[in-house]
Amino acid sequence: MHLEEVEARIAQQAAEFDPAVEGYVTYAIGGRGKRLRPLMALLSGGASGGITPAHVDLAVIVELIHIATLVHDDIMDEAERRRAQPTVNARWGNSLSVLLGDCLFAQALNLSTNFDNTDVCRTIARAAREVCSGEIIQTQRRFDLHLGIADYLRIIEMKTGSLFAAAAELGAVLNGADAETTRALKDFGRKIGAAYQIYDDCLDIAGNETEIGKTLGTDLRHGKLTLPVLMLLGSAPAAERERYCELILEEKSSAITKLLKMDSPNGALKASVDAGEELIRDAQREIEGLPQNQYTDSLFQFGDALRELLDQFRV
Amino acid sequence: MHLEEVEARIAQQAAEFDPAVEGYVTYAIGGRGKRLRPLMALLSGGASGGITPAHVDLAVIVELIHIATLVHDDIMDEAERRRAQPTVNARWGNSLSVLLGDCLFAQALNLSTNFDNTDVCRTIARAAREVCSGEIIQTQRRFDLHLGIADYLRIIEMKTGSLFAAAAELGAVLNGADAETTRALKDFGRKIGAAYQIYDDCLDIAGNETEIGKTLGTDLRHGKLTLPVLMLLGSAPAAERERYCELILEEKSSAITKLLKMDSPNGALKASVDAGEELIRDAQREIEGLPQNQYTDSLFQFGDALRELLDQFRV
Repeated sequence: MHLEEVEARIAQQAAEFDPAVEGYVTYAIGGRGKRLRPLMALLSGGASGGITPAHVDLAVIVELIHIATLVHDDIMDEAERRRAQPTVNARWGNSLSVLLGDCLFAQALNLSTNFDNTDVCRTIARAAREVCSGEIIQTQRRFDLHLGIADYLRIIEMKTGSLFAAAAELGAVLNGADAETTRALKDFGRKIGAAYQIYDDCLDIAGNETEIGKTLGTDLRHGKLTLPVLMLLGSAPAAERERYCELILEEKSSAITKLLKMDSPNGALKASVDAGEELIRDAQREIEGLPQNQYTDSLFQFGDALRELLDQFRV
Repeated sequence: MHLEEVEARIAQQAAEFDPAVEGYVTYAIGGRGKRLRPLMALLSGGASGGITPAHVDLAVIVELIHIATLVHDDIMDEAERRRAQPTVNARWGNSLSVLLGDCLFAQALNLSTNFDNTDVCRTIARAAREVCSGEIIQTQRRFDLHLGIADYLRIIEMKTGSLFAAAAELGAVLNGADAETTRALKDFGRKIGAAYQIYDDCLDIAGNETEIGKTLGTDLRHGKLTLPVLMLLGSAPAAERERYCELILEEKSSAITKLLKMDSPNGALKASVDAGEELIRDAQREIEGLPQNQYTDSLFQFGDALRELLDQFRV
């Protein structure tokens, strides 16, 4: 379903760079990610009139932006492994990672100019700006125990939802879809993206490192208060809450992680899963009005599959 | 001459970001840089038909890209001061600096979509890619004593020349200038940009830190072999050369800097100044054929002023 084509086109991107840079690009784009954003771009195209070569281009662009942010995230998280391989920073250091992320980002924007439609370029540039702004707010509020669940939801909509939203929105725009279809797909993308981030945040706490192939437990260690932690703090009695806060501030995060993994004492992990599944239902509701075809079916199934992933954390 | 307008428009950019991000943007864009790339965009506009509001936009865009690369450079160089102020990384850490640079870059590309001309966006995205690729090659070849002068010249054309070239080229493109005028201005920009980098590299070795307001001596300390060092190595007798190489590899760069500052024993600093001035002459020759007006005069004077700056290193 065009995903192999996207994969091949992503692999070809390395040749667009200076030969001295090509090898690093090949490394960063390899390792076969889940390609969820490309999938969103393609399915949105299918749901709004059909998948065209322009949708394959869009899929490549959103994935390149995503990869660029991963390269930069791994610097900030001091992550060692990603997709079962050493991260770019673990292999070649921070300086090269900063520059490589920049290069990938520039290439994504360069590709976006091939649409000969500045609206498309603008939506992509703005999504990239929103992803980074979301991450800045997240960085700013590390170890900030006043962070509320609404703040968290806003951060994940910005840092993850916005690129999913751009992929889905532009999938419709490239087909010249009507405003309502475009809005529905965009909102579906944003909500599914946010739900995916909740899944990813649960995974960081309760996942299996060997199975997943990346360094886990980094969020809380770096002071990022994700939904399970906020749920834990929000529903704990005052004395407990104080003890948890101390553990976080003293950077003894493993004690918290352990508590959350057992989903005790207050079902914080389960509450997070519930919130993620609620978002998925909301997302699915957005596209209920679209004419049914194999692609709208697949968009629904995208939500269902994500719900199953979340369900594994009901301990 | 529109530079105040550019300055005001740069300052307004902060408000384009999320309120939580705005303060960091204000800090990064403040401090009044030399605004050389905006000047290049404006003068090129004047030289090719007249300065329009679009040239002011272009000036803002190239400066934002430049500022984004500075924010990222300061992470890599672990620089403490820039424009007489603490760097973004010194003040808020590397994570925030990575993200802030990304945001500024995304905003520059977002602004470029306002031209409703994807060719303009493409030239800007490609220039950004070339700047970063040049820096990757530079990073890759740190402490590489096989780096030749031709390699160095290629790196500085990429990392500095390409953004000056894009500013000058697009200044002409926005006026619908003919191909020869556009090419002449583009080549002028590239060569002047490279000459400016030679000046900046001499400054890092022989400048006065208090006067300049930024951390100096960082290039050699980080293994970046700039023109004066390459000139020193290239013209030293074998035994001397070996000793210098050892000093560089042992990271005892201050001994080399001291030698270069006295411009002994072989006039390496003077030879670098000569090379820079040769580039300036080449650049000025590119625009000799353009019709004379106050802006082409100013472009020539840009070269003359840079020559004077270089002349201070003739010790």
